[in-house]
Amino acid sequence: MGEDRRPEILDATCRVIAKVGIPGLYIRRVAEEAGVSRALISYYFQTRDDLLQAALAFAEQRAIDEIASRTHSGTAIERITQALVLEFDDSPAVRDNWVIWSELTEAALFDPSMRGPIAHWSQEWDAAVAGAIREGQADGSISSSVDPDAASERLTGLVDGLGARWLLGELTPERAQILVREAVHLELT
Amino acid sequence: MGEDRRPEILDATCRVIAKVGIPGLYIRRVAEEAGVSRALISYYFQTRDDLLQAALAFAEQRAIDEIASRTHSGTAIERITQALVLEFDDSPAVRDNWVIWSELTEAALFDPSMRGPIAHWSQEWDAAVAGAIREGQADGSISSSVDPDAASERLTGLVDGLGARWLLGELTPERAQILVREAVHLELT
Repeated sequence: MGEDRRPEILDATCRVIAKVGIPGLYIRRVAEEAGVSRALISYYFQTRDDLLQAALAFAEQRAIDEIASRTHSGTAIERITQALVLEFDDSPAVRDNWVIWSELTEAALFDPSMRGPIAHWSQEWDAAVAGAIREGQADGSISSSVDPDAASERLTGLVDGLGARWLLGELTPERAQILVREAVHLELT
Repeated sequence: MGEDRRPEILDATCRVIAKVGIPGLYIRRVAEEAGVSRALISYYFQTRDDLLQAALAFAEQRAIDEIASRTHSGTAIERITQALVLEFDDSPAVRDNWVIWSELTEAALFDPSMRGPIAHWSQEWDAAVAGAIREGQADGSISSSVDPDAASERLTGLVDGLGARWLLGELTPERAQILVREAVHLELT
């Protein structure tokens, strides 16, 4: 058996979505981007929807790993602040991730089969932030009067809303980071 | 001269976008929906982009008028709360408006010519909330230590983010309203 070629195919799929959006996502284009045959893509991913859902999972897991690798120190409130602020890191990888998220969210509006995967990652993200809030209540860095679930839903909802504006150039990453830092302070202290 | 047929054409355009999204928006479909000829639509709107931008302005102005007509009483903080909570009113008109906003925002990602109109309406909305916050600081219902612009950007950003989740069925309108009420309280008191 050869090596697993899925990661490079999914990485290429993410680059194609970030460049041209889901309407321009064709297997042929992914094959060119990845430098593999269309047959190989079809071997791993039977349908375009399979490929889309796997690309979403790949992009989200990569973002989670990236944030986890950069937010290991400090109190819980410091780690939450770092993690949310990193969502507005002005690097191509972060920006591509936002475009992919935005494109797949939009696709789910008219394609209910995409809603489960999108909801799954929203919930993962909410649960991670709510878990960190509970850790902060244990380590004393976050007020015990905070409702972890409501605060988490609002913080991640705010990041989603500001992310859309950042993508369209309505908001600088620096401004988004300031707004998010203040939101963490208002919500959690 | 006959009467101005633009409002009914734009109303029909909004219904078509809400039903099938921007990829499914054809002049032929709008003509059928409005019960007018394609020539009449072309008479008022030279290009599909003209029609899209006019439909966005129509939908946003209608939403602003609707909210204004329902939020005339109370202190400034009560009016801000009412206005933001009304964004999650579970009526077809409100939902259609969210779909239109979401579709046009998405289109702007890969079509920079749509970004100006989207930014315009974001700024209108932010400015209206910031203005109401300043009124609240004058009438005493809002703390004078609040930064009106930052609070407004966060509240409207939060509503944008929660709106996307509501559209996908991840959040009930009741939950969204509770989260927004608490956010207003945290931000403004």
